[in-house]
Amino acid sequence: MEPDVIPLSKPHEDISMPDSLTDNKCLDTYNFGSNFIRLPVSDGVRELHTVIRDKTTIRKDFIFYADRLIRLVVEEGLNRLPYRECTVTTPTGHTYDGLRYEKGNCGVSIVRSGEAMEQGLRDCCRSIRIGKILIKSNEDTHDARVVYANLPKDIHQRKVLLMYPIMRTGNTVIKAVKTLQQHSVNESNIILLNLFCTPQAAQQLVSEFPGMTILTSEVHPVAPNHFGEKYFGTD
Amino acid sequence: MEPDVIPLSKPHEDISMPDSLTDNKCLDTYNFGSNFIRLPVSDGVRELHTVIRDKTTIRKDFIFYADRLIRLVVEEGLNRLPYRECTVTTPTGHTYDGLRYEKGNCGVSIVRSGEAMEQGLRDCCRSIRIGKILIKSNEDTHDARVVYANLPKDIHQRKVLLMYPIMRTGNTVIKAVKTLQQHSVNESNIILLNLFCTPQAAQQLVSEFPGMTILTSEVHPVAPNHFGEKYFGTD
Amino acid sequence: MEPDVIPLSKPHEDISMPDSLTDNKCLDTYNFGSNFIRLPVSDGVRELHTVIRDKTTIRKDFIFYADRLIRLVVEEGLNRLPYRECTVTTPTGHTYDGLRYEKGNCGVSIVRSGEAMEQGLRDCCRSIRIGKILIKSNEDTHDARVVYANLPKDIHQRKVLLMYPIMRTGNTVIKAVKTLQQHSVNESNIILLNLFCTPQAAQQLVSEFPGMTILTSEVHPVAPNHFGEKYFGTD
Amino acid sequence: MEPDVIPLSKPHEDISMPDSLTDNKCLDTYNFGSNFIRLPVSDGVRELHTVIRDKTTIRKDFIFYADRLIRLVVEEGLNRLPYRECTVTTPTGHTYDGLRYEKGNCGVSIVRSGEAMEQGLRDCCRSIRIGKILIKSNEDTHDARVVYANLPKDIHQRKVLLMYPIMRTGNTVIKAVKTLQQHSVNESNIILLNLFCTPQAAQQLVSEFPGMTILTSEVHPVAPNHFGEKYFGTD
Repeated sequence: MEPDVIPLSKPHEDISMPDSLTDNKCLDTYNFGSNFIRLPVSDGVRELHTVIRDKTTIRKDFIFYADRLIRLVVEEGLNRLPYRECTVTTPTGHTYDGLRYEKGNCGVSIVRSGEAMEQGLRDCCRSIRIGKILIKSNEDTHDARVVYANLPKDIHQRKVLLMYPIMRTGNTVIKAVKTLQQHSVNESNIILLNLFCTPQAAQQLVSEFPGMTILTSEVHPVAPNHFGEKYFGTD
Repeated sequence: MEPDVIPLSKPHEDISMPDSLTDNKCLDTYNFGSNFIRLPVSDGVRELHTVIRDKTTIRKDFIFYADRLIRLVVEEGLNRLPYRECTVTTPTGHTYDGLRYEKGNCGVSIVRSGEAMEQGLRDCCRSIRIGKILIKSNEDTHDARVVYANLPKDIHQRKVLLMYPIMRTGNTVIKAVKTLQQHSVNESNIILLNLFCTPQAAQQLVSEFPGMTILTSEVHPVAPNHFGEKYFGTD
Repeated sequence: MEPDVIPLSKPHEDISMPDSLTDNKCLDTYNFGSNFIRLPVSDGVRELHTVIRDKTTIRKDFIFYADRLIRLVVEEGLNRLPYRECTVTTPTGHTYDGLRYEKGNCGVSIVRSGEAMEQGLRDCCRSIRIGKILIKSNEDTHDARVVYANLPKDIHQRKVLLMYPIMRTGNTVIKAVKTLQQHSVNESNIILLNLFCTPQAAQQLVSEFPGMTILTSEVHPVAPNHFGEKYFGTD
Repeated sequence: MEPDVIPLSKPHEDISMPDSLTDNKCLDTYNFGSNFIRLPVSDGVRELHTVIRDKTTIRKDFIFYADRLIRLVVEEGLNRLPYRECTVTTPTGHTYDGLRYEKGNCGVSIVRSGEAMEQGLRDCCRSIRIGKILIKSNEDTHDARVVYANLPKDIHQRKVLLMYPIMRTGNTVIKAVKTLQQHSVNESNIILLNLFCTPQAAQQLVSEFPGMTILTSEVHPVAPNHFGEKYFGTD
């Protein structure tokens, strides 16, 4: 496992870090542009973060709290999908002005930790199509390589909810987005669903893909890298 | 089934109604005080409302969308519970400043439609205690009477998440809150979890119980009274 | 709470009891006729029984294991519903001889403990209609009285999955079945879904309603009467 | 996609095939030894098969029925795990002779279709560790190659519930079992959870790994190869 704090290197020195790295309330001062969206920091979300971060949390509880956080991020992501206004009739004959989301979306999880978000997506979109990308990184060179991709055939015509819970360097997600681009997916049709993100990863992603929407629940210099292994119990 | 729009009668004539009763976008102009909280009106929530209101929605979908809305209201309700700051240690040895909710909460559903919210509560609080109150209304006199109550014995020491999805007159909820008060529950320890509320019901509740927290996802003159029967299929 | 072992009284003296009341492996020797069906006693089911009986089980686990047992009983109950043979075509053009269940079923839970089985029923029949009966017993006279019933209007045309997890005397279920009969439900259209049953209750029910199907997972002289209160946390 | 009926070739000519390949009721006449276990053929299971086979089933329903079948297979698989007798005390002070499963199990899903069974496993074993193996087959040579494996570090000390829903030739599962063997897992510690199996695959697996337990819900010459793509919507 790599160190979970990345020393701020040259390419990121434009990021102003708060003095106390662990003071997560300060981290809302970062600004990564209008396509980078943070879940509002409610007490409820802060508790979910706390339980997920805490090393004494048992797996059973970890999964339960992680699933709650995932559903909140998914609901926020669904919010960003295209819709149209519509008028419906109620059982008592009233008209009601509402809206409907357009069809033609799909999910793509990045193996392995991204798969932890599949059930949460399904809890909110019962029968959404879910594709998958597996990326391997060379531990020395940090070079990322796609070893497997299973995507809906018409993915270039869909909005894509890309799922990856923890971003430390952002390299894996960058590789995944490039894979989607090779399948003719437009970067503006991608919404990244993420739980925890370092400032560096955020900076790198908004620089590389300014048209992609990024959704996270926390920006913090320390990434909870144990997430996937704890969720699946492969630690 | 009662008519689902209540004509504005004397006691409520202080409520300024928008010209178009069905223009739900205007309804955020109501103000019922600081203890009356509306879920932020996102596109996602508006879609949930639309599907639930639409008479052509099949039961399977109705339940699925209702459950999503219920979970969002429950998450917002959990937000209002008391917590304390705490510091935890992460698996990599960092400290993290977070928070923990206090123990000592419970749910109480008002039979029958309130029971539709029990599973949503359990999805967010796995093993929360859930009590129940059954109230019968005389269809002529609108007099409400408690015929059954099954509550945790120490309920006066707990915060109570009272569940009732649809409020047209507010009478049933008023009777339920009075029942809780008879069990020595302080009104400031009650958080009402509601989905749809008429302005009249809102007005009546904040007048009767100014210390109670009320949480809803929509204030609208037309209440979707079919909710419980459609959810349970007893229509 | 009543004593959870009923002394064998006159009307039941025809039941041959095993010497050791707690030797549950012997209890399969009871025979209550062909409409009384026990879930096969697998090791898996025995573990579920053990966890549910164990007073040291925490509520979180109690609910999880109870839900598993409930789903197994529900699946077995669905097995007993009427179906018709049918032939379908597979995606590769083969024909396949299978079967389809008829529509026109519903669930009815007896408040309060029967409600614990509603989610399990829904997990297997996503949008089945679910009615409800509330019965109060006089603690001295054991006289049972219906205080509330909310049933699908066309219930006499439906098969009814009646849900009640624990039967000690059988009195509550007898009252519920009589209520269904008053709504013109034929006793042969009722399948009782039960988890734990005393020999006395079994005997009484098959005597009163020989045409009703009864499904349970364990016949044992000691009924786990704490079930409902532990499930809902109202103890 | 390969043809989903394999012509009976030399190595399998010892299998006596029924005259009508689609007469699934005849297929129980196969016998693949005592470690090869079929779920009892109830009407309920036959309906699940019918819905899953039917090309007109919409994805929403496909997933719901598949999940039910998966849970039944998982429950049967858990039955085969080692346990010990134990005695517990009930809340009313009685002793109860039951059993407890031993700890030290894990799940391993074979990507991609095996992953459809992960949630079902988690529904029955809340926090079981779940590893994963990705195997790629050369479409011409049918040569299977492991491209990714993420397994619990102590897997050789665990019982392994290997998940793969559809077996046509058995080649993918054979490769997965060999991978587990390379991680020092004893073949007698593996329980294969499968939904649909051709006679050929069954024959090949029991020949190669006579000590492995194999659990399926149907043996049929026509494998529903669309399972994974329909479940995940990547068709």
